[in-house]
Amino acid sequence: MRVEVICTGDEVLSGATVNTNFSFISRQLYDAGLPVHWETTVGDDRESLLEAFRLAGTRADAVIVNGGLGPTVDDLSQETAAQAAGVGLALDDAWLARMENHFRLRSRIMPPNNRKQAMLPVGAEVLDNPVGTACGFAIDIGRARFFFTPGVPREMRRMIDEQVLPRILARSGTAQAVLLKRFHSFGIGESRADVLLAGVEALAPEGSVKLGFRAHYPQLETKLALRGASQAELRERLAPVAAAVRERLGNFILAEDEQTLEGMLLATLHKAGLTLAIAEDYTSGRVATRLAVLEGGGAVLRRSVAAPDRAALAAAVDAARTGSTRAARDADSADTDATGAGIASALRQLAGTDLALAIMVEPDSGADRTDFGGHVEIAIARETGVVIRRSRLVGGREWLRLGAAEMALDALRRHLGGLPIDERIDFEKLPE
Amino acid sequence: MRVEVICTGDEVLSGATVNTNFSFISRQLYDAGLPVHWETTVGDDRESLLEAFRLAGTRADAVIVNGGLGPTVDDLSQETAAQAAGVGLALDDAWLARMENHFRLRSRIMPPNNRKQAMLPVGAEVLDNPVGTACGFAIDIGRARFFFTPGVPREMRRMIDEQVLPRILARSGTAQAVLLKRFHSFGIGESRADVLLAGVEALAPEGSVKLGFRAHYPQLETKLALRGASQAELRERLAPVAAAVRERLGNFILAEDEQTLEGMLLATLHKAGLTLAIAEDYTSGRVATRLAVLEGGGAVLRRSVAAPDRAALAAAVDAARTGSTRAARDADSADTDATGAGIASALRQLAGTDLALAIMVEPDSGADRTDFGGHVEIAIARETGVVIRRSRLVGGREWLRLGAAEMALDALRRHLGGLPIDERIDFEKLPE
Repeated sequence: MRVEVICTGDEVLSGATVNTNFSFISRQLYDAGLPVHWETTVGDDRESLLEAFRLAGTRADAVIVNGGLGPTVDDLSQETAAQAAGVGLALDDAWLARMENHFRLRSRIMPPNNRKQAMLPVGAEVLDNPVGTACGFAIDIGRARFFFTPGVPREMRRMIDEQVLPRILARSGTAQAVLLKRFHSFGIGESRADVLLAGVEALAPEGSVKLGFRAHYPQLETKLALRGASQAELRERLAPVAAAVRERLGNFILAEDEQTLEGMLLATLHKAGLTLAIAEDYTSGRVATRLAVLEGGGAVLRRSVAAPDRAALAAAVDAARTGSTRAARDADSADTDATGAGIASALRQLAGTDLALAIMVEPDSGADRTDFGGHVEIAIARETGVVIRRSRLVGGREWLRLGAAEMALDALRRHLGGLPIDERIDFEKLPE
Repeated sequence: MRVEVICTGDEVLSGATVNTNFSFISRQLYDAGLPVHWETTVGDDRESLLEAFRLAGTRADAVIVNGGLGPTVDDLSQETAAQAAGVGLALDDAWLARMENHFRLRSRIMPPNNRKQAMLPVGAEVLDNPVGTACGFAIDIGRARFFFTPGVPREMRRMIDEQVLPRILARSGTAQAVLLKRFHSFGIGESRADVLLAGVEALAPEGSVKLGFRAHYPQLETKLALRGASQAELRERLAPVAAAVRERLGNFILAEDEQTLEGMLLATLHKAGLTLAIAEDYTSGRVATRLAVLEGGGAVLRRSVAAPDRAALAAAVDAARTGSTRAARDADSADTDATGAGIASALRQLAGTDLALAIMVEPDSGADRTDFGGHVEIAIARETGVVIRRSRLVGGREWLRLGAAEMALDALRRHLGGLPIDERIDFEKLPE
């Protein structure tokens, strides 16, 4: 089964918009076992569209076209699809009614030019768009079945998953259903994961589960792709394989499927009724931002402080502490405040939160380079005491920032889950 | 002149990598007055590459191929280019020597498989790559001139600008040189900018300057693209037009060309020997992060604090202030601390910086939606007093965050430059 994708639109062809729609479509097809063979991008130009449809129609079995279904004159997909298929355009009354209703629900009158969106090539099959006015459709051109999808990402994504993929799978004849299970981990490199998971595919009937990885530092995504007759069958086949992956990757799995590390952390803290404060130097606020922007983040993360280095960070929490607990400070020596434990404890006390997380990095000196690294110290303070995680990460300034931020959130996840927070990870350099 | 681009590589075709190389190449060509007509992506597959080269060679005058010049077996560009051109491969001794020297300078021995990178189609013209081992080259296939470029973005960018564009321009016959001047502004929408700049193109000889815009909220980029015989001629033609743009967009221009708002701000503060502290609620650390991650950012931005809402932010700076200036606090009333002025002043005193910038947003309640907005208050505290900027921005949660962060940095830029900080912008909703 040969699949091609055609992306349309001047804004994509001119480079004004980066083509993330294509990478989404291609990943979904790849995960369903139908890798894309060829991609073409053309502008909002009748001649180019016709030629692209004609060429793909001679080469492919299935073609996904993205964009050009809007209400304006430069949206040419229906018109050129009809021309390429050698048919006329006709008004789809059912879709027109859907659109009018769409506008009515929003207390608006449908502008006349939206009517164009209900003009479909004669004989086309409608692909439902439950979240917009652009009607998707499928039609044969040459030897291929063409699937026309809207350019608005939210509408395109849903139509690909719900309408297009099942149809292409059915045509491919090998499977009616696909299932993709994803595990997100931090601290295991792709090659070690590959070794750890050797043989898991054999826990399901031969060839029905395909193991794959996608490394996007600092996380690794482990994917199990299944194809078969029904979702029920696939879930049954998945179960023993997923259980084996969970067991073998163990503490390193931080989230599954659509979950994120920060989302899981926030849910855990929220459920336990715990509040948090964060202090960071080299990561300059990035750890806190990941939690703060989430829905409900403000109820958990009550304060965050950033400063350019450990001394300035100590001053930021200490200057405060001076007043609120002057007596406590007098009992301490000044230099203990600059330890990670001192900074986290002081922040916790100052912010009045249940927990404080401090992330401090001592970066190497000199210019950025691939072996640029830094010593990372992470401190988690609770009423019962402070736990510390130390490490050294290498790979350039940005790599160091990303790794330290991830390690901090992961340490907090592990701490809250009762897991060891200093388990050796593949990215860290141990002292020689 | 018809220009096409062919992107190669399994990682791009499978969607694992978003194709930002293409958008870069296409933008550069567009700005040089040579818009791309057609783009094709194929994988690391001999048959697809040959077919893509053959097709483009029948349609285009110039074709840029990206990727496939590496040392491994799946890098097929030289080999398939030779096949498509009907010639053999030969070792380029000069490039081999360059590569060996490249490794020697890094105290490394060149691995044997890198030798492959110096094998070029017979008759190909070398395109220099001063920053890597992948040798670019140009060769005729069909009726088109093909330009082969490396997939590593840093190497590709330089080769496109320095080697490929001048050659394509020369072939296009209309111009030998191009110049692109860019102005970055905040607060003017594209349609108003278009009105403000009406007629500026006429300040240069007819047709030699092309005005364009690229809106990427919250900033607007105004572009002047020039084509002509030499850089000297273009600079002369640009001068009166650029002066007119600066005069008409006036205070709204925050940077030019490669400069950024945060980069300009940091340079200004650094030059004046001023230090800064930042407090923010809804923007949750994003304003501070933009400055903190820049080279030298830590010397200027000495502290940043974020909290989920104004009350928590006031507590964060007030709790601290309690101790350091208890006497001062007793003289204040408690509720003045929660004003923007109170928060900025307290932070400035607490952090011991010359300036403090506070950004507070009161978001609307309810779910995210396109008319979701918020009231923004920005306060800049110096020893001499506090200045305030108030506004209302609308457009959804993320839109509000981006707009408020930009407005805060822009207000500081205006304040430091002696410009009015409350000049009306196109994005704000005034009270009705």
